[in-house]
Amino acid sequence: MQRIALDMDGVIADVYEQLFSLDEKDFGRRRTLDEVTGKPEKEIFPNIRKYLFEPGFFRTLPVIAGSREIVRELYDRYDLYIVSAAMEFPLSPGEKQAWLQEHFPFIPWQKTVFCGSKQIIQADIMIDDHFKNLDHFTGSTGILFTQPHNALADAGRNKRVHNWEEIARLLL
Amino acid sequence: MQRIALDMDGVIADVYEQLFSLDEKDFGRRRTLDEVTGKPEKEIFPNIRKYLFEPGFFRTLPVIAGSREIVRELYDRYDLYIVSAAMEFPLSPGEKQAWLQEHFPFIPWQKTVFCGSKQIIQADIMIDDHFKNLDHFTGSTGILFTQPHNALADAGRNKRVHNWEEIARLLL
Repeated sequence: MQRIALDMDGVIADVYEQLFSLDEKDFGRRRTLDEVTGKPEKEIFPNIRKYLFEPGFFRTLPVIAGSREIVRELYDRYDLYIVSAAMEFPLSPGEKQAWLQEHFPFIPWQKTVFCGSKQIIQADIMIDDHFKNLDHFTGSTGILFTQPHNALADAGRNKRVHNWEEIARLLL
Repeated sequence: MQRIALDMDGVIADVYEQLFSLDEKDFGRRRTLDEVTGKPEKEIFPNIRKYLFEPGFFRTLPVIAGSREIVRELYDRYDLYIVSAAMEFPLSPGEKQAWLQEHFPFIPWQKTVFCGSKQIIQADIMIDDHFKNLDHFTGSTGILFTQPHNALADAGRNKRVHNWEEIARLLL
């Protein structure tokens, strides 16, 4: 059974939607997709560090469209692990655990990994929105999930997907 | 640089000392090493599940003798990661993070992994006190750290060490 290492933020959890809405509260105007495309989140949202340390940020992230149903199917056909970089922000491991239990209750704690760097992860397939994770991946298939910050970059040796339907076509 | 996956509980954090002392509070008598040797913790300490869910259990574990100094040296000479099974008990990730920051402040969050199963971990050397982790390890060297629960078992393909001085002799 092939092993999948599945990222959370930007793949099943909608970080941009949360950032857009917090940023709008602070600055009174919702940024457009055009404004944010191709730029790192840090450059776009001046208060991002504050948001990431606020209680509730990770707990209340919206679920990315289509992910729940397709992850459910993947879980039955692959050795699927949630692998999330959760160590930088003190509240995030607890909030991410609770978030997973609410939205992906079929994934048991045994299949959850919170790490700093993902270099230590061994899997066949990695689904992630960050090159910093995919670039060090030693498995056969890297899947780059499109998010505004990576939208203009060359996917390199990774397969780019724009939504969960494309992941289903690729893996199911 | 060779990568080490270093366990916390039973290797750098003294779970038995904590269990002995909580058990003594509940039952009025400190168990002897003889009584607990060769038996799983679950069989020895009737209230272990209660202890593991109590706030502070993981935060106040004593440091295992000699580990701090030798881990410091290993950290300089190996690609060392802390890899701890922390997902079963909701409070443990946060408490373990704080414990590491207090006792092993030279290990950054980037080098910390909290997981359910360790099957997804890729390293050359694994130092652990549990066969359930070492048995699935795909690296070259498994090091079994002696704890009462594993003391009577055959180490199998792993090297058994009884204390941190033996690890230093093996790896430094």
